[in-house]
Amino acid sequence: MNQLIIKPTLLLDEKKCRRNIRKVYNKAVNKSLIFRPHFKTHQSLEIGSWYKELGVNKITVSSLEMADYFSSQWNDITVAFPVNILEIELINSLAKRIQLNLMVESIEAAIFLMSHLQYNIGVFIKIDVGYKRVGIDPSNREEIDAIITLLESSDKIIFKGFLAHAGHTYDCRSKQEILRVHKKSVEILRNLKDQYQLRYPHIINSYGDTPSCSVAEDFEGIDEIRPGNFVFYDLAQVQIGSTDISNIAVAMVCPIVSMNKHRNEIVIYGGGVHFSKDNLQDEVYGKIYGKVVNKNEIGWKDELTGAYLKKLSQEHGIVSMPEHLINDYSIGDTLVILPVHSCMTGNEMKSYLLEPNKEITRL
Amino acid sequence: MNQLIIKPTLLLDEKKCRRNIRKVYNKAVNKSLIFRPHFKTHQSLEIGSWYKELGVNKITVSSLEMADYFSSQWNDITVAFPVNILEIELINSLAKRIQLNLMVESIEAAIFLMSHLQYNIGVFIKIDVGYKRVGIDPSNREEIDAIITLLESSDKIIFKGFLAHAGHTYDCRSKQEILRVHKKSVEILRNLKDQYQLRYPHIINSYGDTPSCSVAEDFEGIDEIRPGNFVFYDLAQVQIGSTDISNIAVAMVCPIVSMNKHRNEIVIYGGGVHFSKDNLQDEVYGKIYGKVVNKNEIGWKDELTGAYLKKLSQEHGIVSMPEHLINDYSIGDTLVILPVHSCMTGNEMKSYLLEPNKEITRL
Repeated sequence: MNQLIIKPTLLLDEKKCRRNIRKVYNKAVNKSLIFRPHFKTHQSLEIGSWYKELGVNKITVSSLEMADYFSSQWNDITVAFPVNILEIELINSLAKRIQLNLMVESIEAAIFLMSHLQYNIGVFIKIDVGYKRVGIDPSNREEIDAIITLLESSDKIIFKGFLAHAGHTYDCRSKQEILRVHKKSVEILRNLKDQYQLRYPHIINSYGDTPSCSVAEDFEGIDEIRPGNFVFYDLAQVQIGSTDISNIAVAMVCPIVSMNKHRNEIVIYGGGVHFSKDNLQDEVYGKIYGKVVNKNEIGWKDELTGAYLKKLSQEHGIVSMPEHLINDYSIGDTLVILPVHSCMTGNEMKSYLLEPNKEITRL
Repeated sequence: MNQLIIKPTLLLDEKKCRRNIRKVYNKAVNKSLIFRPHFKTHQSLEIGSWYKELGVNKITVSSLEMADYFSSQWNDITVAFPVNILEIELINSLAKRIQLNLMVESIEAAIFLMSHLQYNIGVFIKIDVGYKRVGIDPSNREEIDAIITLLESSDKIIFKGFLAHAGHTYDCRSKQEILRVHKKSVEILRNLKDQYQLRYPHIINSYGDTPSCSVAEDFEGIDEIRPGNFVFYDLAQVQIGSTDISNIAVAMVCPIVSMNKHRNEIVIYGGGVHFSKDNLQDEVYGKIYGKVVNKNEIGWKDELTGAYLKKLSQEHGIVSMPEHLINDYSIGDTLVILPVHSCMTGNEMKSYLLEPNKEITRL
C-alpha cells in the first residue's frame, strides 16, 4: 500500500483499532459500566459504526458542532464541554431531535439554560477531581446544591449526575501513577454520589479518560465511562503508561524529499499541518514529534530503533536516522511515523486510509 | 461584529493586512527587487487578489497542492520546497498550464526531473545559508556544479539561479540580530551568483523570510524576495523583532465558557484545533499560546496587559486574567486573542471573517 502513496497520508490499521475498541468495551460490559465512548479522537461516522456493531448506543463529543455531525446516526449524545450558551439555537435544534446531555459547572449557565431551553435535555454537573481545568471543587457543596436546585426546578432539565475527567493522568509516567490518580478521582465521585443519591436516586457518575480506563480495574462508584483516545492511542499514551506501542492504530506515511547524510537527517514532506505541533519529551531522544516504524506490505510493524521525528515546520519534517541505516533510504521513498497525539493528527488530516482505495472521512 | 460571533472565529483586519502587503511591496519596488510573495500563510485566492491589485504577478507556495490551488489565478508559481518526485504527475500537469519553478538540492532529484518532465519548468538550486534544514552547503561547489551541468543538459529545464531561506532569523530576538543573520545570508548568495554569472548570465538570487524582508534595507546581490508571514504577522514575529504588535492582522474571537475566579482563569471555547499548539516563551508570562487584546466594535485594538492564553487542550483554552479585571467578564462574553503563529492558526481555521457576513475561504 505504501508504494501507492505520494503525499502525507494517515494510515489506519482497522484490526488494531477494532481490537482497541473491543478491549475497553469488554471491560465496561464485565464491570456493568455504561460505555459512552468519546468520539473527539476519530470524529468519523464510519469508525462510529464499528462501535455500533458491538451494541454501543451512547456517545460523548466535545463540541456542539461534533454533536450535530454525529446526530445523523446517534440519538444519545453527551457534550463533555462547558456549555457554550452562545450556541443556544443549535442546542435547541439538537434537543428537539436527540437525547442531548450537556455539562454545567456554574449557576450562570444553569440559569441561562432554564430560561432558553425549548426541549428537554439531561444535565451533568462537572466536578473537578484534580485536573484544575474546568469543574466545581467537590468540597464546594454550596454551589453544587445551588445548581442542583436550579436544574431540578426546570421542567426541561433532568439532573443526570456528576461528570469528571481525570485529565491529570496525562502527567503520569507509569501504570502505578495512573492508578494512584484514578483511585483518588473515583473516590471523590463515589463520595459525592453517596451524599446526593438519597435525594436523587437516579443520578449516575460519569467518568473517563483513556489512561484510567485502559489500566484500572476498580470502578466502584462509577456508572459510566467516556474514554476516547484509546481508539487509536499514540506515543503520548505509551509514555503515560496506558498502552504498548504495538496498539497504536494510526501512522503517517511521508515522502522523503531530501537526504542530509552528513548530519544523519532525512527531510520528509510532512509538517505541522499534518502531524500538529504536539510533541513529547522522550527519555532517550529529547523532544520528539513522532517515531519511525518499519513498513510492511500493508502498513507498518515494529519501531525502527533510533529513528524519530525531531523537528517540524509547516510542511517539512526532519527525521533523525541512525548512521548505519541512512544509506537504506533515498528521495522518493516513504517513511511511516507514529504520531505523538492522534487526536490532533487526525484533526489535521481529516481522513484515514485503511487500504488501497479505501479512505474514510471525518468531520 | 464580535457580538454576532458564537464560536471560535478568525478575524482578519483587511486594512492592516493590505498595509502590511503594501509596505513590503513598496520596499521591493524601491530596491528593484522582484516581489514573489509566499502564499503559504494566507492560502486564499481572495487575499491573493489584493496583491494582484498592486501589480504582483509571481508567487511562492510550499507544496504542489498549493500550486494547484493558486494555478486557477496565477501563472508564475515557485514551489519553495524540495521537489517531491512522487508527485511527478501533478508537476507535469502544472508545467503544462503555468510557468512552474521547482527547487532542487540533490543530483537524484535533478536526474529524476530530467527523465520524467514532459513540459518546461524553471529550477532553482536551494542553498543552505545557515538554517540547516534543507539546501546545499554553499562551499560544496562540486555538487552545485554537478547539478547545474545536469539541469543545463535538459531541454525541459531552465536553470533559474539560487534560492535560500534564512530561517535562522526565527531564532533572533531583535532587529540587530536579524540584520546580522541577513547580512551573512545575503553575502553567501551574492558570492555564489558572482561566481556563476559569467557562465549563466540570466541567473537570479531568490531570497526571503519575513524577519529579513521586514527590517533589512540592504539587498545588494539579491534579485527576488519571497516573504510570506508578513501578510498577517503574529506574536512570534513581534518577539523576533520583525514588527510591532499593532501590525498583526488576524485575531481569534473565542466564547467564554467557564470562569475560575479563584485562580484568575477564564476558560474559552478555542483550543489546539483552532490556534494550533504553537507557543512561545514570553519574557514576562512564560509559555504562552496567545495574548488577549481589547475589543472594539469592528475588531480589536491594543493589548489587554496581563491577559494571555496559558494552556490549550483540543477544544479548550485557559486564559490567565489579572485579578482586577476578571470581574469584567462572564460566560457568554467573547475574548479576542492574537495568535502565536498565524500560518498554523490560519491552517486550522480555513477561513477569515472580515466583517459581518463577509467571510473568505482558503485552501
